[in-house]
Amino acid sequence: MRQSHLFTKTRKEAPSDEVAKNAQLLIRAGYIHKEMAGVYSYLPLGLKVFNKVANIIREEMDAVGGQEIKLTALQDEVLWSKTDRWDDKKVDNWFKTKLKTGKEVGLGFTHEEPLTNIMKDHVQSHKDLPILAYQVQTKFRNEKRSKSGLVRGREFSMKDMYSFARSEKEHETLYAKVREAYIKIFERVGLGDLTKITFASGGVFSKYSEEFQTISEAGEDTIYIDEKKNIAVNGEVNTDEVLADLKLDKKNLVEKKSIETGNIFSLGTKFSEPLGLTFKDKDEKDVPVIMGSYGIGVGRLMGALVEVLSDSKGIVWPEAVAPLSVHLILVGADEKVRAHAEEVYETLRERGVDVLFDDRDVRPGEKFAESDLIGIPTRAVISEKTMAEGKVEVTARASGKSTMVDEAEFLNP
Amino acid sequence: MRQSHLFTKTRKEAPSDEVAKNAQLLIRAGYIHKEMAGVYSYLPLGLKVFNKVANIIREEMDAVGGQEIKLTALQDEVLWSKTDRWDDKKVDNWFKTKLKTGKEVGLGFTHEEPLTNIMKDHVQSHKDLPILAYQVQTKFRNEKRSKSGLVRGREFSMKDMYSFARSEKEHETLYAKVREAYIKIFERVGLGDLTKITFASGGVFSKYSEEFQTISEAGEDTIYIDEKKNIAVNGEVNTDEVLADLKLDKKNLVEKKSIETGNIFSLGTKFSEPLGLTFKDKDEKDVPVIMGSYGIGVGRLMGALVEVLSDSKGIVWPEAVAPLSVHLILVGADEKVRAHAEEVYETLRERGVDVLFDDRDVRPGEKFAESDLIGIPTRAVISEKTMAEGKVEVTARASGKSTMVDEAEFLNP
Repeated sequence: MRQSHLFTKTRKEAPSDEVAKNAQLLIRAGYIHKEMAGVYSYLPLGLKVFNKVANIIREEMDAVGGQEIKLTALQDEVLWSKTDRWDDKKVDNWFKTKLKTGKEVGLGFTHEEPLTNIMKDHVQSHKDLPILAYQVQTKFRNEKRSKSGLVRGREFSMKDMYSFARSEKEHETLYAKVREAYIKIFERVGLGDLTKITFASGGVFSKYSEEFQTISEAGEDTIYIDEKKNIAVNGEVNTDEVLADLKLDKKNLVEKKSIETGNIFSLGTKFSEPLGLTFKDKDEKDVPVIMGSYGIGVGRLMGALVEVLSDSKGIVWPEAVAPLSVHLILVGADEKVRAHAEEVYETLRERGVDVLFDDRDVRPGEKFAESDLIGIPTRAVISEKTMAEGKVEVTARASGKSTMVDEAEFLNP
Repeated sequence: MRQSHLFTKTRKEAPSDEVAKNAQLLIRAGYIHKEMAGVYSYLPLGLKVFNKVANIIREEMDAVGGQEIKLTALQDEVLWSKTDRWDDKKVDNWFKTKLKTGKEVGLGFTHEEPLTNIMKDHVQSHKDLPILAYQVQTKFRNEKRSKSGLVRGREFSMKDMYSFARSEKEHETLYAKVREAYIKIFERVGLGDLTKITFASGGVFSKYSEEFQTISEAGEDTIYIDEKKNIAVNGEVNTDEVLADLKLDKKNLVEKKSIETGNIFSLGTKFSEPLGLTFKDKDEKDVPVIMGSYGIGVGRLMGALVEVLSDSKGIVWPEAVAPLSVHLILVGADEKVRAHAEEVYETLRERGVDVLFDDRDVRPGEKFAESDLIGIPTRAVISEKTMAEGKVEVTARASGKSTMVDEAEFLNP
């Protein structure tokens, strides 16, 4: 992709009302646009990162047998009344709107109810289970405050997976598989070391839920980590009773701020019973399905990556989720150098390398500053000097280290 | 994909309140689920078709230089007031909702306003133009009636492209390129012959807009076609004056019902002027940007395909958008035959063929009826009989014609 063709421009300052570092940097670098607090549009580079993150998640969900679907935003009162989650006094972050008929409808903040209802059409016998189904879909949550950029949105994309099992034992097997898939996702996007599996409050059907908490000063959560055991507890359950239960010693715990980047829940029959999702077991007896739910915010993960990996110059993307792999920068106005840079660009493209080619007529200092802000992992500079030496100046964005690399080697690594 | 793993089941009857053929068939075959009138969830096979259609559209938008983005559903009154499209008396299909602060926000039914506003951050000079940007994104339209299945949704996915040009002349070049891309899209999805470019009412800034109308009895539009000239006019502009202008003779026109599957508009400065999107021309003078918009409903196209290509047995997908290419069906309970079908399934998968493998223990008649309903282009049956002959029975869904094909040839076409 040519930078002269890319319609977004970088900017020196973020909007004055934007206080979150992730949104400030992503806006300045042209990845996103703020529509209102907690509501962001994705521009070309932003959508590329979004899709890379989403596709890593999809691959891991598919690998454990997940089937992708796409549910709707508009939600019917009838379903949510059955589980007592329609009333605004019970759920305080609904967005509601009205059909022309006057009927009130909601905008889904999660999707247990509609998917449980859909499964009633497809699950009759024990032979129809287990099922894992997931979506990457837009959620709407009417948050009172939304000052954390992509980390807490009013409208945001979430991958939500739901599991449907015949028994607690089968549920535990599914849950463990998805838990492993989550660990892989965080490793693949470059947040493995910084992300701690954290015990949090469960609910009626399970003692604890597990959160994936990414350590960051920008986090809204506080967790207590036993570094040796690599276990953490959320502040909300950091009581003597819970610590005893988890065999953790208060004096080994370190307090950290963190972003809840994922969570996994055992739901038991909380949704299947009121909505009537049952199956016939081998004795033809009707049994309620045992469910689980598993969430990762795609935009939130992107925001967390910017919070924890950026530096004073800008964003630092890990290779796996970078919008493009190489930022090829033409330095100087010499026509021979330009023609040579064009050749290198075409060769890289032919070899399937994702390149952002800064072919613009802009002074080098500005190009380098923009390149640092945008945060593509590898920068490759072609100038009169590098050309004379038959080399390319390659700089790693993360370390800032530069080396002169033979052009042939650069093109054939 | 194994049919025993696919969680959806087919059903004999559609919901009694569903009157549209496309939705009836898609629900019966397990592609979609009706949440409420005009609001459908996509199940695994449905999402596969949706993605195939969307990706064909993306390829053609990319080919003309379109840059993909993703805007938001939630919309700010400030922007839409500037173009006088906020008031419910001016636009009668808004869904509106409220933030916790009490501030009213809308759910986007189209996205000219927010994208024009975004461009103000990125367009300053004539060097920054032209731009083509598009998204595949959810629209919300509060329709009074919604009885046409995927053909008229209250919540639906649309590909909407917007063009930004320096002059009318440049706009016309962009418009012509996108028009050609649209023709290709309709050809690629299998609706080329049935889709007519149709003159419709324009607006303040252009005499006519052009619609892509797919001939179908299920259509809500009426168009008048000059078959020889391969031009049509929408009923709404079928006046003596317009016919004279287009040099069409009333007596050569044939009346047809049709589905508006796409439309392209010249917008002039209708949005750039009130929203203040200007650029500095070569003389440093501020000039408003000339815009165009180009829409295709992804779900609507899917619905139109089912309306025009299905038969009494079910859906007939064209290869390009079929959820999978081959429906491999195991007939009989013999273990040797099953083992052999498993081998064929694995071989096809290794060769990159998208196969739905009906490995279930269900009687053949039921399997064939379901296969016809689901509508995968090629059916391949493996039974004791075909195995004995070293053959596979291959049936084309569209023609119904069956042939016995040597297994080696089937695996190595």
